[in-house]
Amino acid sequence: MKSFNFLLPNRSDKPRNNGLTMALDKGLGYETGKSLMEIAGDYVDLLKFGWGTIVVHDRDIVMKKIKMYKSFDIIPYPGGTLFEIAYSQNKVSNYFKEAASMGFETIEISDGSTDMKTEEKLDFIATAKDKGFNVISEVGKKDPEKDSKISIDERVESIKDEIKAGSSKVIIEAREGGKNIGIFDKSGNAKDEEVNYLLKNLPNEKIIWEAPNKDQQIYFVLKVGSEVNLGNISSNDITSLETIRRGLRGDTLGKI
Amino acid sequence: MKSFNFLLPNRSDKPRNNGLTMALDKGLGYETGKSLMEIAGDYVDLLKFGWGTIVVHDRDIVMKKIKMYKSFDIIPYPGGTLFEIAYSQNKVSNYFKEAASMGFETIEISDGSTDMKTEEKLDFIATAKDKGFNVISEVGKKDPEKDSKISIDERVESIKDEIKAGSSKVIIEAREGGKNIGIFDKSGNAKDEEVNYLLKNLPNEKIIWEAPNKDQQIYFVLKVGSEVNLGNISSNDITSLETIRRGLRGDTLGKI
Amino acid sequence: MKSFNFLLPNRSDKPRNNGLTMALDKGLGYETGKSLMEIAGDYVDLLKFGWGTIVVHDRDIVMKKIKMYKSFDIIPYPGGTLFEIAYSQNKVSNYFKEAASMGFETIEISDGSTDMKTEEKLDFIATAKDKGFNVISEVGKKDPEKDSKISIDERVESIKDEIKAGSSKVIIEAREGGKNIGIFDKSGNAKDEEVNYLLKNLPNEKIIWEAPNKDQQIYFVLKVGSEVNLGNISSNDITSLETIRRGLRGDTLGKI
Repeated sequence: MKSFNFLLPNRSDKPRNNGLTMALDKGLGYETGKSLMEIAGDYVDLLKFGWGTIVVHDRDIVMKKIKMYKSFDIIPYPGGTLFEIAYSQNKVSNYFKEAASMGFETIEISDGSTDMKTEEKLDFIATAKDKGFNVISEVGKKDPEKDSKISIDERVESIKDEIKAGSSKVIIEAREGGKNIGIFDKSGNAKDEEVNYLLKNLPNEKIIWEAPNKDQQIYFVLKVGSEVNLGNISSNDITSLETIRRGLRGDTLGKI
Repeated sequence: MKSFNFLLPNRSDKPRNNGLTMALDKGLGYETGKSLMEIAGDYVDLLKFGWGTIVVHDRDIVMKKIKMYKSFDIIPYPGGTLFEIAYSQNKVSNYFKEAASMGFETIEISDGSTDMKTEEKLDFIATAKDKGFNVISEVGKKDPEKDSKISIDERVESIKDEIKAGSSKVIIEAREGGKNIGIFDKSGNAKDEEVNYLLKNLPNEKIIWEAPNKDQQIYFVLKVGSEVNLGNISSNDITSLETIRRGLRGDTLGKI
Repeated sequence: MKSFNFLLPNRSDKPRNNGLTMALDKGLGYETGKSLMEIAGDYVDLLKFGWGTIVVHDRDIVMKKIKMYKSFDIIPYPGGTLFEIAYSQNKVSNYFKEAASMGFETIEISDGSTDMKTEEKLDFIATAKDKGFNVISEVGKKDPEKDSKISIDERVESIKDEIKAGSSKVIIEAREGGKNIGIFDKSGNAKDEEVNYLLKNLPNEKIIWEAPNKDQQIYFVLKVGSEVNLGNISSNDITSLETIRRGLRGDTLGKI
């Protein structure tokens, strides 16, 4: 039972198909991560080990963390940048093997930091799916200049193609910072018209919006609703986001 | 004994009536919170469970945290927004019951996110006090536009009335961010004239200034002195604030 | 063995003379710090207990933390501000005694918050070395106005003199914030010409650049290389910096 149970607004439980929270682990200690999940694990659906962080971490500790997250019914997976590092070194096949061997059941296919032909990316999505992975893909470039050259129609087309190729969800890139990238301007404000266009042209339940900053989370919850899929949530903000979703923080109180 | 004990400037010990630090817990894991209090617990007087966070947390874990904080002679209490959620659902009486039953001895009465008549708020303060709670109240609106409509004289009057009604301390709202709200401008700088006016017209020991950012903490310590009451201190900054209070950080070294 | 070992680019191991990471501990709980070092301790060479933080902490806990850091082959040392506090109270001799007695083998000599004659500072460096300490010194003032009055040539001369006097490394001050100080402008961008001048006139392996923000870390890694010495790294960013050094994050992928 929760504290002040009679004040808790309903929301879907895990495993959810919508209203997902994807949190970012950028190097939490095992005990610290476990302590956090004991209090907030109910509100994490997906846990991304950020970019190439786990390559500098001991395999044993990472596997211990994978098991720990799974024990809270959380789906851990390695960041897309790690896939791209393998790709840039022609080691994708080893990448899939090691991911499976470590216990990952979900992986991310992205091309945010590397040049990859569209067909190549779609092939990787299909291949990963064939190998038994749940596939999440990501659309957008990490370099703001390159990213700004992708038209909104191209984004829509890429997302549709990737879903068709086998992605269970597609992430809209915003990095850890959330500024001057994708749908966010230099101050981190959402470009409302672009969001509208994406919402109109895409199946909402297939999209995960990276929204690392509080104002971005509030924006999406007020615009799309409690059950919007949000990503790159700092591990410090998992509880805060859940209260924003449920109208338990000033910003959304009485507005949900 | 402290490290480098001969360099430690004196300051009042707990339980203090002045120089209080109110820290913000926005969802710390039990073990992580305990580990932090073991090193910094001496410098936390009040611990606010932020807004509605505990409603999404297991009652058992929250009660374990309440006990843990008390074991360090810290007064834990639920954020005012939680009271307002109960108020907006006509469940204030259940709210008081659950708070007492969980072990809270202090509660906060605020109207930052809800419309509440002045008399109603003062009544809640008196009622809570009658029920045996130590009452802290908060003045200010969480919405910057609404907040900006409160004149400085109205603020002074509200604070005086709330003290008279039974508040042991009154908090000046600044939220977790500390920008564009209450006495802080858009950049988070204190409006010096307003602060002067409040200091001149109110009993200093009754006020808790929310000052989440380092520069705000330095401002108040240099202006009012080491024994100013400060609130919404991030759990990461508890030690830093104590060193600012005692002239052990560059910003206040030799100035206290 | 690391995760995805076949993707890990080489870099020097500890104990390193170059490519040092100096992390900042501003009051971590013992268990939290230990949990972090278990996963990221390989990437911390020096651990600075920030400014006067340990003066407000129990001597037993601090000594436990010193031992813990050493067990991970990390060199813990007290921040220069603590030395300056002792200096301003004429207690330098007690300071050296207590530092040694607590287990510190490295100390920092700085004059960022106090006025100290050049000769005096150099004397302290020599004295500390004589007493058996490994000495790190720091150049720069914590007050931006005072700091801006130090010419680039004066900085170069000070650093050379301090190395001659016995400093094993000299830190370029940037504080915890990294803005409007030393080589960083108001937005935290490095002043490229000044950095060039320092790089040209000083032995690179003797310098530790304080670079608390991610963009500053990327700047130095891209400019100087993976094996640049960087300081004041937030404990949350230790893993991130290591991935930046090794080209495992989007910003440096394929550029190292």
